[in-house]
Amino acid sequence: MNIAIIGLGVIGGTFAKAIRASYGQKHRIMAIDVNQETLNMAIADEVIDVGETSNQSILSEADLVVFAIYPNMIKDFILYHRDNFKDGATLTDTAGVKSVVMKNVEEILPHNLSFIFGHPMAGREKKGYAYADASVFQGANYVITKSDLNSNQEIEDFKEFLYPLGFKRITVTNAVMHDEMIAHTSQLTHAIAVSLINSDDRLDETIKYIGDSYRDLTRIANMNESLWPELFSHNKEALLDNMERFEDAFTTLKEAIKNDDLKVMESIFKASSHRRIRLEQSDMKK
Amino acid sequence: MNIAIIGLGVIGGTFAKAIRASYGQKHRIMAIDVNQETLNMAIADEVIDVGETSNQSILSEADLVVFAIYPNMIKDFILYHRDNFKDGATLTDTAGVKSVVMKNVEEILPHNLSFIFGHPMAGREKKGYAYADASVFQGANYVITKSDLNSNQEIEDFKEFLYPLGFKRITVTNAVMHDEMIAHTSQLTHAIAVSLINSDDRLDETIKYIGDSYRDLTRIANMNESLWPELFSHNKEALLDNMERFEDAFTTLKEAIKNDDLKVMESIFKASSHRRIRLEQSDMKK
Repeated sequence: MNIAIIGLGVIGGTFAKAIRASYGQKHRIMAIDVNQETLNMAIADEVIDVGETSNQSILSEADLVVFAIYPNMIKDFILYHRDNFKDGATLTDTAGVKSVVMKNVEEILPHNLSFIFGHPMAGREKKGYAYADASVFQGANYVITKSDLNSNQEIEDFKEFLYPLGFKRITVTNAVMHDEMIAHTSQLTHAIAVSLINSDDRLDETIKYIGDSYRDLTRIANMNESLWPELFSHNKEALLDNMERFEDAFTTLKEAIKNDDLKVMESIFKASSHRRIRLEQSDMKK
Repeated sequence: MNIAIIGLGVIGGTFAKAIRASYGQKHRIMAIDVNQETLNMAIADEVIDVGETSNQSILSEADLVVFAIYPNMIKDFILYHRDNFKDGATLTDTAGVKSVVMKNVEEILPHNLSFIFGHPMAGREKKGYAYADASVFQGANYVITKSDLNSNQEIEDFKEFLYPLGFKRITVTNAVMHDEMIAHTSQLTHAIAVSLINSDDRLDETIKYIGDSYRDLTRIANMNESLWPELFSHNKEALLDNMERFEDAFTTLKEAIKNDDLKVMESIFKASSHRRIRLEQSDMKK
C-alpha cells in the first residue's frame, strides 16, 4: 500500500525506517515535512520514496496516513486537507495522550475516512529525523485506543501491519484507561526526572559523583519543551492523581528515614524489589 | 602484589574480575567469602588464585585488602583479625557512605596498617558473584575520601592502581562532601525509584503501558534490603535535605500543571533539558 508519514521527526522517521526495514519495497513510503533537507536525507537513505514540504499529491495516493506531528495540530491538518485524502484511507496518530486527541478528531473526521488512534510506547529523548532508529520499536509496547467508529476488522488489520515492525505487545483499550496508565508510566516518570535534575544545587560537582542510577533517572529530563506542557495539560487530572500517590509513597519513606526506622525501610525496599522483579518477569523486552 | 578481596559478592567479584582482566597474572588475587561454592566458581573462572571461607593465611600475605562486605561489618572484621594482617598492608573499602565508616575504622585501625577509603560509583542492582562484571567499571567514577592518616603518596599510588581497572575519573575529597553529593546522586535516586514503583496501584495492567522511561526509572528499585536501610540511616541529614529539595522542585511543577501554566512548565523543561545536556557533555561515559 501507499503510506504517508506526516512529520518526519524522530517518531515519524522511526516509523518510516521500521516500515522500510520490515517490509522492504512492499509498501511505498511517502512523507510530508516542512523541512526539505530532512526529506532529502530520508530519500538518500532510501527510507522514503517521495517527500513534499506541503501536500501536492501525497495525500490523494495514501492508503494509510501516520500523523507524527504535535497532537494539537492533527485536527487542523485534517480540516485543512479534508478534500485531499484518498477515499477510504485509514489515518492513525502516535500521540502520547488520547482522550483530547480522539475527541477533537472524531468531531471533524470526514465520513469517507477512518482513524485508528495509537501510541507506540517507545521513543527517544532527542528531536529530529537524525535520531530516528527503527530498533527502538523492537520489543516495545503499542497501545491502540479503540473508537466507536472503528470496526474490529480494521483494528485487527492494523495490528497485523504493526507486529512486523517489532512491537512485542499491542494492547487495545479505551482512551480513559490509556491516559490513566500513561500518567503513571510516562508522564509521572518525566515529572520526576525533571524535578530530580532541577533540584541539584551543585551541578558542577555532581558530575564527579554520578553512577548509572543518576544517568538512568535523568536521561528523560531532556524534554521537548514545546510538546510536553501540552501533553501534561491534556491529561492533568490523571497526572495529578499519580503525582500525589507518588508523593505519599515518598513521604512514607522520608518519615522512616527521619525516625531511623530500619524495619519500615526494609519492608519498603522488599516491596519495591518484589514489584520490580515481577515487572522484569512479565516484560520480555531486555 | 598480593590482593585479598573480603566478600566476593557483586562488588568484590567485580573488583577481582577487573583486576584480573586489566593486570592478568601480575597480581595474585585471593578472596575470603563465607560461601565455598562462590570461591570454587571464581577459582574455576581463574578470577582468583586462592579462596578461604574464613581467614587461614590470606590476610598475612595480602599487601592490599579490599573490603566488599556490608559497611558496618568492616570495623569488627579488623578488630577480630587485628593480629592477622601483613605488617604495612593497605586496606580499602567500597562503601557507599563514608563519614560513619571512616570514624569507626579510624578509631580502631592498628598503627602498622593503612586504610584508604574509596567508593567505586558503579554497581549492579543484583546481588552475588554471578552478577559481577568487570565492564561496569569502564568509564565509571571513583571517589576517594582522604583521611588525615593518609599520605599524598599512597593516594597517588592507589589511583595509579585503579585507573587501569577502567575508571574514568578518580576524585579525592573528604567524607562530608562525598556523603552530601552521594545523597543526591545515589540515595535520592534510589528513594525515588522505590517510591515510584510502590505508588503503582495497577501493577498487572502497568506492564502493557511501559516504555523505556519506566524501565529506566525503576531499574534500581530492586534493592538489597539488608544494605540500604543502613546506608540511608548513616547519611540521614544529607539525604533528607536532598529529598526536600526534590519535593520543592516537584511541587513547583505540580502547581504549574494544576494551574495549566504552560509557560512555567516550558521554562521548567527548558532548565531540565539544559542541565541534562550539560551533564552529558561533561560525562564521558556512554
